[in-house]
Amino acid sequence: MEQMIGKQSLKFTNAPYIIETACIAGKKEGEGPLGKLFDKVCEDGMFGKNTWEEAESELQKETIALALSKASYTPSDMRYIFAGDLLGQLIASSFGVKDYNIPFFGVYGACSTMAETMALASMTVAAGYANKVMAVASSHFASAEKQFRFPLAYGNQRPLSSTWTVTGCGAVIIGNETSAVKITGITTGKIVDYGVKDSMNMGACMAPAAADLIYQNFMDFGVDASYYDKIVTGDLGSLGQEILITLMKEKGFDISKVHMDCGIEIFDSKTQNTASGGSGCGCAAVTLCAYLLRKMKKEWKRILFVPTGALLSPTSFNEGKSIPGVAHGIILERNE
Amino acid sequence: MEQMIGKQSLKFTNAPYIIETACIAGKKEGEGPLGKLFDKVCEDGMFGKNTWEEAESELQKETIALALSKASYTPSDMRYIFAGDLLGQLIASSFGVKDYNIPFFGVYGACSTMAETMALASMTVAAGYANKVMAVASSHFASAEKQFRFPLAYGNQRPLSSTWTVTGCGAVIIGNETSAVKITGITTGKIVDYGVKDSMNMGACMAPAAADLIYQNFMDFGVDASYYDKIVTGDLGSLGQEILITLMKEKGFDISKVHMDCGIEIFDSKTQNTASGGSGCGCAAVTLCAYLLRKMKKEWKRILFVPTGALLSPTSFNEGKSIPGVAHGIILERNE
Repeated sequence: MEQMIGKQSLKFTNAPYIIETACIAGKKEGEGPLGKLFDKVCEDGMFGKNTWEEAESELQKETIALALSKASYTPSDMRYIFAGDLLGQLIASSFGVKDYNIPFFGVYGACSTMAETMALASMTVAAGYANKVMAVASSHFASAEKQFRFPLAYGNQRPLSSTWTVTGCGAVIIGNETSAVKITGITTGKIVDYGVKDSMNMGACMAPAAADLIYQNFMDFGVDASYYDKIVTGDLGSLGQEILITLMKEKGFDISKVHMDCGIEIFDSKTQNTASGGSGCGCAAVTLCAYLLRKMKKEWKRILFVPTGALLSPTSFNEGKSIPGVAHGIILERNE
Repeated sequence: MEQMIGKQSLKFTNAPYIIETACIAGKKEGEGPLGKLFDKVCEDGMFGKNTWEEAESELQKETIALALSKASYTPSDMRYIFAGDLLGQLIASSFGVKDYNIPFFGVYGACSTMAETMALASMTVAAGYANKVMAVASSHFASAEKQFRFPLAYGNQRPLSSTWTVTGCGAVIIGNETSAVKITGITTGKIVDYGVKDSMNMGACMAPAAADLIYQNFMDFGVDASYYDKIVTGDLGSLGQEILITLMKEKGFDISKVHMDCGIEIFDSKTQNTASGGSGCGCAAVTLCAYLLRKMKKEWKRILFVPTGALLSPTSFNEGKSIPGVAHGIILERNE
C-alpha cells in the first residue's frame, strides 16, 4: 500500500505505537502550570554535575533510564536511539546516551528535534527495521543561554518577544506493540527563511515554518483544522502564535480554535517572568510526554504535533545572517 | 522477509541504488592523489563568499546542484534530503540546502555523517517512503579549524598525529531505479569512548568505534574480512589505521589486507604536509564519490564503507571531557 501522501507526508501502513514515555524537568518548569504532571522535577539545575553541559547530559541519561524502567525494558531492548539537543556537536546527547550502548542516530532540528527524532523513529519501526526504538530530545536553560546569547552572570535584559529555554528532557519509546496512542503519519518540513534576524524573537523566526508545515499537512492529507482536536506547535510563544494564526488565515485556514503552543502552556508568563513563553527542544518534548499524551487518553482523539526549530547559530548570527526556521509534524491518534 | 540482521544491522529486502553522485573539493585536495577524479575543484577557498561558513554552505549548494544536473533531476524530484556537517547547529547544511525547498532531515554524526545520511536515506527508499532522496555531507578546512582548534592566523604547530580537515562535499542520490551500485545493508554504530582526550589525535579517538562497528558487521552477517573486497574507513589517518588493525587482531580478525582509509588516500602526506592524513565529513564523502564508486564499476564487487566520527566539541573539550567516537557502516555491492 502506498505510504507516500502528497508532497511531504507519509501515512503509515503499519502505524507504530507510543509504548512508554518519560520526562524530567527543571525547578522553574516544576513551578509552572504543568509542574505536577512531569515524572520528575529536579531541584538542582546542575543535576549533581560540574558544568551546564554535563548537567544536560545527566538529564538525558536519567530520562532514558526512567523511560526504560517505566516500561520494564533494558537498554538492549532498544534497537536504535534517535537523539538530539541544541548544543554544538550534540554533546548533551552523545555524552547522555553513550553508556547505554544502543545504536545511535544523532539528529539536529533545533527546537523541532523531538519531532525529527520521532519521525525517523516511527519510520524505522513502521518499516520493520526495529521492534522498539527510543526518541529523545533535551534542552537546558543555562547551557543554551551560554551558547546562544549572554553569560547568565551578565544579567541582560530580556525583551518581551524573548522566550525562556526549558530545562527538560523527553524520551519516547516507539514500537510495534499495541498501546493507547499510535503515530499514523508524519509531515516533514522544509527550511523556511523569511529573513528575520532577531535572536530575541524566535517566535517570528519559526512561525513561517510552522505555517508552511501545517498548510502542507492539510494539502497532503486533504483535510483542514477540523480534522484535528488540537494542532500543537512546539515553542512559538504568544507572539509567534499570533503570527502563525495570521499566516494561516492568509493561506485560507482558521486554526485559531484548535491551536495550542507548548511554549505558552509550560510557563505562567505573568508570574514566571518568561516573556513570550518557553522554548528549546525540551519544551515540546516534556509537554508531549507530561500533558498532550495524557489529554489524548480521554479528551482528544487526534492531534498534529508540530515542534518548530529556529536554525540559530551564534556564528552565523554574529556574521549577520538570518535565522531560518524548520518544523516537523507528527500525527498522533488514540488507538480505539 | 526479515530485514533485521543480528544486533545492529539491516539487510534490505529491496536494496536501493546509488543513482548519481557529485563531489566538489578544495584546491589542496585537487593537488592530491585523487585530484583528477573530483567533479570539480574550486581554487577559491572562500567559494566567492565573505566568511568560511558561507563558503561551506556555498560548497554544499553547488554540489547538490551538480548532482541534480548530472542526473537530469530538479530539486522537486527529491522527496527528502538528509544532510549534515561539522559546524555547530549544522549551519553549513541549513544555509546550503534551504533554497532547494526539499523536506529536510538534519543529522550530526561528526565525520561519520556521510554514512549516517546514507543509512537513513537508504532506509527511507528501501521502505517505500520515497523514490529518490539525497544524502549530503561536507566539511571545510578553515571553518573547522576556526571552530574546533586555533585561528588560522595563529599558525599553531601541527603534531604528526593530527589530521587535515578536507574541504569538500559529496552528494549521493539514492533511489529505487536500477544502477551500477546498490546499498544492500547497513550497520549502525554505538558511541564508543576509550577516554582519549587528544584533539590532535583524532585517529586514536575514532579507531575503537571503527573496530566495534566492523566487528559487529562481521558478527551480524556471519562473515569475515574476506567477504569484502575493501573495508574503507573515513578518516582514521595512518596512526588510526594502525590502531584499528591492532584492535581487530585482538578481536580475532585480520583486516590488514583489505583495509583502506579515505584520509590516507586523499592526500600525499609526505609532500602535502598533512601529517596523519585527511579528515572531516567531506573526506569520506568526496573519496566515496570520486574514487570508491569508480573502483566498484570494474574492480571491486563489494565494499564496507565505514566513515568514523570523533564527537569532539570545543566546549566539552575545554571542559576536560574525552572525545568519544562513532562509526556507521554501509555495504555497497556492484549490481550484476
